[in-house]
Amino acid sequence: MRRIALALLTAAFASSLCAQQSTSLTGSWLINLDYHGGPIYWQLNLTDTAGHLTGMLDTDTVDGAISGSHIKFIAKDPKSGYEDVDAVLKDGVISGTLIWLQEGESADKAAPHSFTATRQPEPRTGPPQRLEFTPTHYYNQFSAAIAPVAHIWPGDTIHTTTVDAGGSDEHGVARARGGNPETGPFYIETAMPGDTLVVHIRRLKLNRDTAISDDGLDTRVLGRELAIRMKDTGNGITWNLDRQHMIATTTKPGDHLKQFSVPLHPMLGCVAVAPGPGPAIPTGDSGDFGGNMDFNEVVEGNTVYLPISVPGALLFFGDAHAEMGDGELNGNALETSMDVELSVEIIHGHSPMNPRIESPTEIMAMGLAGSLDDAIKTATDNMARWLADSYKLSPSEIAQVLGTSAEYRISEVADRNAGIVLKLRKDRLATLQPEPAPSPAKQ
Amino acid sequence: MRRIALALLTAAFASSLCAQQSTSLTGSWLINLDYHGGPIYWQLNLTDTAGHLTGMLDTDTVDGAISGSHIKFIAKDPKSGYEDVDAVLKDGVISGTLIWLQEGESADKAAPHSFTATRQPEPRTGPPQRLEFTPTHYYNQFSAAIAPVAHIWPGDTIHTTTVDAGGSDEHGVARARGGNPETGPFYIETAMPGDTLVVHIRRLKLNRDTAISDDGLDTRVLGRELAIRMKDTGNGITWNLDRQHMIATTTKPGDHLKQFSVPLHPMLGCVAVAPGPGPAIPTGDSGDFGGNMDFNEVVEGNTVYLPISVPGALLFFGDAHAEMGDGELNGNALETSMDVELSVEIIHGHSPMNPRIESPTEIMAMGLAGSLDDAIKTATDNMARWLADSYKLSPSEIAQVLGTSAEYRISEVADRNAGIVLKLRKDRLATLQPEPAPSPAKQ
Amino acid sequence: MRRIALALLTAAFASSLCAQQSTSLTGSWLINLDYHGGPIYWQLNLTDTAGHLTGMLDTDTVDGAISGSHIKFIAKDPKSGYEDVDAVLKDGVISGTLIWLQEGESADKAAPHSFTATRQPEPRTGPPQRLEFTPTHYYNQFSAAIAPVAHIWPGDTIHTTTVDAGGSDEHGVARARGGNPETGPFYIETAMPGDTLVVHIRRLKLNRDTAISDDGLDTRVLGRELAIRMKDTGNGITWNLDRQHMIATTTKPGDHLKQFSVPLHPMLGCVAVAPGPGPAIPTGDSGDFGGNMDFNEVVEGNTVYLPISVPGALLFFGDAHAEMGDGELNGNALETSMDVELSVEIIHGHSPMNPRIESPTEIMAMGLAGSLDDAIKTATDNMARWLADSYKLSPSEIAQVLGTSAEYRISEVADRNAGIVLKLRKDRLATLQPEPAPSPAKQ
Amino acid sequence: MRRIALALLTAAFASSLCAQQSTSLTGSWLINLDYHGGPIYWQLNLTDTAGHLTGMLDTDTVDGAISGSHIKFIAKDPKSGYEDVDAVLKDGVISGTLIWLQEGESADKAAPHSFTATRQPEPRTGPPQRLEFTPTHYYNQFSAAIAPVAHIWPGDTIHTTTVDAGGSDEHGVARARGGNPETGPFYIETAMPGDTLVVHIRRLKLNRDTAISDDGLDTRVLGRELAIRMKDTGNGITWNLDRQHMIATTTKPGDHLKQFSVPLHPMLGCVAVAPGPGPAIPTGDSGDFGGNMDFNEVVEGNTVYLPISVPGALLFFGDAHAEMGDGELNGNALETSMDVELSVEIIHGHSPMNPRIESPTEIMAMGLAGSLDDAIKTATDNMARWLADSYKLSPSEIAQVLGTSAEYRISEVADRNAGIVLKLRKDRLATLQPEPAPSPAKQ
Repeated sequence: MRRIALALLTAAFASSLCAQQSTSLTGSWLINLDYHGGPIYWQLNLTDTAGHLTGMLDTDTVDGAISGSHIKFIAKDPKSGYEDVDAVLKDGVISGTLIWLQEGESADKAAPHSFTATRQPEPRTGPPQRLEFTPTHYYNQFSAAIAPVAHIWPGDTIHTTTVDAGGSDEHGVARARGGNPETGPFYIETAMPGDTLVVHIRRLKLNRDTAISDDGLDTRVLGRELAIRMKDTGNGITWNLDRQHMIATTTKPGDHLKQFSVPLHPMLGCVAVAPGPGPAIPTGDSGDFGGNMDFNEVVEGNTVYLPISVPGALLFFGDAHAEMGDGELNGNALETSMDVELSVEIIHGHSPMNPRIESPTEIMAMGLAGSLDDAIKTATDNMARWLADSYKLSPSEIAQVLGTSAEYRISEVADRNAGIVLKLRKDRLATLQPEPAPSPAKQ
Repeated sequence: MRRIALALLTAAFASSLCAQQSTSLTGSWLINLDYHGGPIYWQLNLTDTAGHLTGMLDTDTVDGAISGSHIKFIAKDPKSGYEDVDAVLKDGVISGTLIWLQEGESADKAAPHSFTATRQPEPRTGPPQRLEFTPTHYYNQFSAAIAPVAHIWPGDTIHTTTVDAGGSDEHGVARARGGNPETGPFYIETAMPGDTLVVHIRRLKLNRDTAISDDGLDTRVLGRELAIRMKDTGNGITWNLDRQHMIATTTKPGDHLKQFSVPLHPMLGCVAVAPGPGPAIPTGDSGDFGGNMDFNEVVEGNTVYLPISVPGALLFFGDAHAEMGDGELNGNALETSMDVELSVEIIHGHSPMNPRIESPTEIMAMGLAGSLDDAIKTATDNMARWLADSYKLSPSEIAQVLGTSAEYRISEVADRNAGIVLKLRKDRLATLQPEPAPSPAKQ
Repeated sequence: MRRIALALLTAAFASSLCAQQSTSLTGSWLINLDYHGGPIYWQLNLTDTAGHLTGMLDTDTVDGAISGSHIKFIAKDPKSGYEDVDAVLKDGVISGTLIWLQEGESADKAAPHSFTATRQPEPRTGPPQRLEFTPTHYYNQFSAAIAPVAHIWPGDTIHTTTVDAGGSDEHGVARARGGNPETGPFYIETAMPGDTLVVHIRRLKLNRDTAISDDGLDTRVLGRELAIRMKDTGNGITWNLDRQHMIATTTKPGDHLKQFSVPLHPMLGCVAVAPGPGPAIPTGDSGDFGGNMDFNEVVEGNTVYLPISVPGALLFFGDAHAEMGDGELNGNALETSMDVELSVEIIHGHSPMNPRIESPTEIMAMGLAGSLDDAIKTATDNMARWLADSYKLSPSEIAQVLGTSAEYRISEVADRNAGIVLKLRKDRLATLQPEPAPSPAKQ
Repeated sequence: MRRIALALLTAAFASSLCAQQSTSLTGSWLINLDYHGGPIYWQLNLTDTAGHLTGMLDTDTVDGAISGSHIKFIAKDPKSGYEDVDAVLKDGVISGTLIWLQEGESADKAAPHSFTATRQPEPRTGPPQRLEFTPTHYYNQFSAAIAPVAHIWPGDTIHTTTVDAGGSDEHGVARARGGNPETGPFYIETAMPGDTLVVHIRRLKLNRDTAISDDGLDTRVLGRELAIRMKDTGNGITWNLDRQHMIATTTKPGDHLKQFSVPLHPMLGCVAVAPGPGPAIPTGDSGDFGGNMDFNEVVEGNTVYLPISVPGALLFFGDAHAEMGDGELNGNALETSMDVELSVEIIHGHSPMNPRIESPTEIMAMGLAGSLDDAIKTATDNMARWLADSYKLSPSEIAQVLGTSAEYRISEVADRNAGIVLKLRKDRLATLQPEPAPSPAKQ
């Protein structure tokens, strides 16, 4: 914990332990602290030795006691900080207040914050489960404050549907507000901040015969001349989806596109974890947490790696596209609803700084930023870290591999963040002998 | 001609025509005007009717006469401008002075400029020729002022060599100053400003066993963290080129790259025409004229289209790479000398705004600019013009094709211009029925 | 309203009007529609003629009736759309459901949405009021979903305080979560979407003797060499604020800054309206709605203009700085708490696309975007619209004024959005005779 | 010298010294080596002891002898390199050939390069001189290959004129090709690569009554909407210059600009040194060498600092503007001819990486790059180096000064390079006690 403070509190411990409170506190708990209106999550590992409490609160050493249902302990940072916890146990949940002294605060000014702690679940036994989930609500923001629609475990599979970016379902019925309404969020047990969520895209199946798009070009690709040329475009276009032959044709083709068709490659525009305990992020946006990445290789058979910021990760997805050229130039791809099947894994104790994608033949590091010129820096840093962490390459070796083997693709230009993906072919990396674990490619 | 001026000159025409001057002036001439120290090129088409001259000087109407070897005529813009020409014919070359009135100038202030006019050659008959050319000098600037090393005709093939970017040849001997010394320039007969030079890359063959590179990463891909991580890199690396198996291995592999090899894909970093009659451009630079494009699909079997700015086009090429990842991240690719075979065509009367490349399966429009965010605008404009000009697509149709089918690749980040290439697969375009001519793809 | 749909609903109207419901519905109402979990705001103007209802719902024509407390009407778009409203009146609030047919929906698929409508207040009479407000909570997101802390009227003044960016108040006590916790939001009566909020900054007074900052430089200004040079910086710096002489000195000056001091210019880093009815925006972010603009001319005596997106505007402010160089290069300026006095006005029926600022001598148009290269486009567009709207300049005239008189200043580089401000001196504009109203400069 | 090569050459030295060659070679010479078609400059310091030559060739140790007019010596790098020089002295000039072994070359492959060496002039005595210079030619490229029009000494003043960007002089007569034709170049004695040229702008006086501009806006400031709004602009505008009242009025004011005038602030768009011994740079371009900086604070009373790349520096200037808003948004400022008076100084042994400007009240570090986002990095690095070199600030101190005191101004958007200037007020720096020398601010 980042505190450089000093604190202190004496506490009078009562002596009686209620009969019905016979269950020991020993075990792993998850604290949810209400810090000025927003959550902070800490892990609490307690050892309850006949009412004497020891253990760790995040990285601080616990010392305290239980008195009846009354719990009292102090957690000290070896250097300087303190938490002073005063709580009760009821119905298996610890709730109470916590004084947290931070830099520059003196104990007399510190105010208590309320918190709850719930016991971490015991590891599930038995084979992975398959969840059939029918959404009833959709969310237009990625947020840790949204209650999960289901709890699943690493290894489990989710089978569900997504509505299109405008909120319409497979029957063309408006089910949600436009702007990439999301299915989820799903809570993945054991996922903690600092872990990696691994999302295997098992199946993306079109479930209707039309997609919505338009005929504009995003301002990011418009210089002066092209802006003027395109000045009267931006009108809605409907595409017919031939699900048998997996091709799309436009319903307003104009004279020259009468024979034009495009092969369909269903993809998910959005895959996300909750972006952190802070303010929500609109589902049109993207970031380290994933989100509206709009990358046309987030397809069946590929895997997405995202850094987890809150307990349970909170997986959201939506904004499926029947097909999309690089960059989502029209602002809308071929927007449609979708039948989706995903499975999840967790890599504990390690997470990428930014989203990564893996196909059977390539590893791909994404950079998302306010300009292409910044996105390429993030994508390159993301891949350099990957090569350093998983393949143990030195800076010189990283440069030699990237200089000879990098492939850069522009994933998105139509959102607030532009996206660039740095790809490396796995056959180029075959001789590099990645470290066995924790390798994102090995989950 | 772009003049909005008024002008005036009377001229006395002499009457005698020298006997030895029996050749008529009728025909097509190329004027090279010395305008304040730099050339301006115009076409002059004359009809000589018993000494009375009519015809066109660029877009202006000619009226004048020959008197002995003395030539005098005025060319009038239908609206406002004048050129007044006073010259002699000697040894088949017209030379003299020309008064050119431009906007805001009055006739009494206008000064004469000297010029020469040479007769355009007669079309060559017979089959295309193959030029075996051994360079003796190399040039470090793209410039219209460099005398061509050879004159060739459309359809002809050049077989020659290039030195590496540092100036060393196939024997490792320093033959030129570093900084992409170029082979050429070659003058292509019939090429005029406004035409397109079509360069078919027939063969790129490695002619030595080493390539020079380094282990740095270009500053364009370095954010703060990666800049610090890479702070001690940037050292020279030598690669061994195994020409039999067409793979390269680094001579300083470090612990993790001992087994690392990259397949070789010989390419030309530079293909250029003279950038115009103005100042020279360093050969490390690029622009509409091509130049140091450093695109790893300028390879054997592909074709480059460049807009011609000066008579003869003046083709330069050099800076061959044995292999290069996207972006030339190390600043140097695998720099080596090369055995090169090219053939050329001219598309008359039409030229792209920016370089285009064609492979057997794709058309590719390049954008070169000071940032990736500007380069993508240029690349997209380049392709939109291509689709409008060659396929007659409307703005709405352009957006629909690009939105579904665009592929963006980053070609170069290590030079002053960044490069982005917008690619379209030809099979996507198969139904679009391009106009028969002048189609760059049909040469 | 943007609907292109067809719809239909029959309705049986009851006949009796309860005695106690004697108050006519005639008047102006504000509808808050719950559309798939988020609000949509419409104005409803009703004329109640003995129980027969006519009027306008936004831009659609109302036709319906009251039966007892039961209200039923249909609103038709002249072209194609329908709203069908079924509601009751209770305690002065209309609540019920509304069927809203949008493009592509057929009536049988349309689902009702719940809504409430409250009567717009009568214009307040009497002089402007001064609100003394002591905050108890602070908000880390700009959101229309936060209940206003007070309702005020145009012309009123607010006197309150802000905590620093880290959440500490004038006593150094942590009062809020870090990340620009905001005072407010304040609801301004009569403010409607499409109006402009005018914020006059009457007084910014320091209320403590220290400010927090650091010694890093933001990554946006770090090229490779400077990133390496600065690699060990980024540590916290405390500044002493001498409120009498209005200068700051650093408490860790190093050898060369022992005599260094900076004059204080208190400013507000954040001034915002709610960004719209959609998802919340973190208070570290900025946009058309203002927010964390971090412009060092948002100072006492100047005025900020913001486009209103929700009824009441919802004014937030915070993140005061004792002083800041252009760009907030350290990521933190001299962050401190502040005593703040503002007054507000509303310009009805017109709003800028982006924030504008006015000083006694200059008008300033801000551009906020993901890069400086995009921010300058937005700033220039913002000023061009200002010159077109308020001064009626033609495009050619706009170019002549900007070409001779523009001053560009970089306002912010340390946030997700970069900011550029285009300034024009008022004395340059003195001859331009702005239109009398609605001129933002005339409030 | 950067050579890591091995080399060897024996040399037979003759013994007789011709009577007429009585002048000793002792002294300082400047070598101009023709290296594959371009110059390389080295300093040669010789001590001639009765025909035995010692001294330094750049950083290498000389050992050789004179035999009659025949000169022969070898210069050895302490580590690895060699130059082998074979020359004659005639008419005070040494000319001959030099073998220069570089990395990877063996002696049997090395070819000789021709060179000349001229004696450095003796320091001039007497007071500074004033040169009255009437240009007859103007140059459209910054190039080391252009013969200087005059040689002057540090401290001297040049009084001359410049033509406008289109090439017209004070009488409106076309004197040069358009595109910023330059006056100069002037050779400044004692200036060597690695030194700084200091240009004091003593006087800029308008010498005609009109300036040329246009009514377009540069594409760098045009987003989609503004591009469309401005689509019919870009036409020429003539401004009347009232030299008595120093204001300009447009001759095509439109309805709203009839009373509009702008105060005149004459400035030089271009001030440059030769960019290096390599290829020429067009005079529309800019770089570390200065050039077409188009900064509206390059005015009378201010000083420009430029890094010198070739002997004599070669000072060019031109492209005067009667007035310009920030960024030169129209592409053309108020372009006019000018009466110019400059004086020059040299700071030996130190040079900035990029142009710097100083006014009586501010120091200004310029960044020039292909985008604003890169230009701000260069400007900040330029100022950080200034603060480190001249004021000895540590990285932390640099950040504290910049964070509180930086002012960023956009100098240019209309050229290939965008320009940003970081300004610091001198009163902020007054306590910093710059090192006495070599301080650019102390010239």
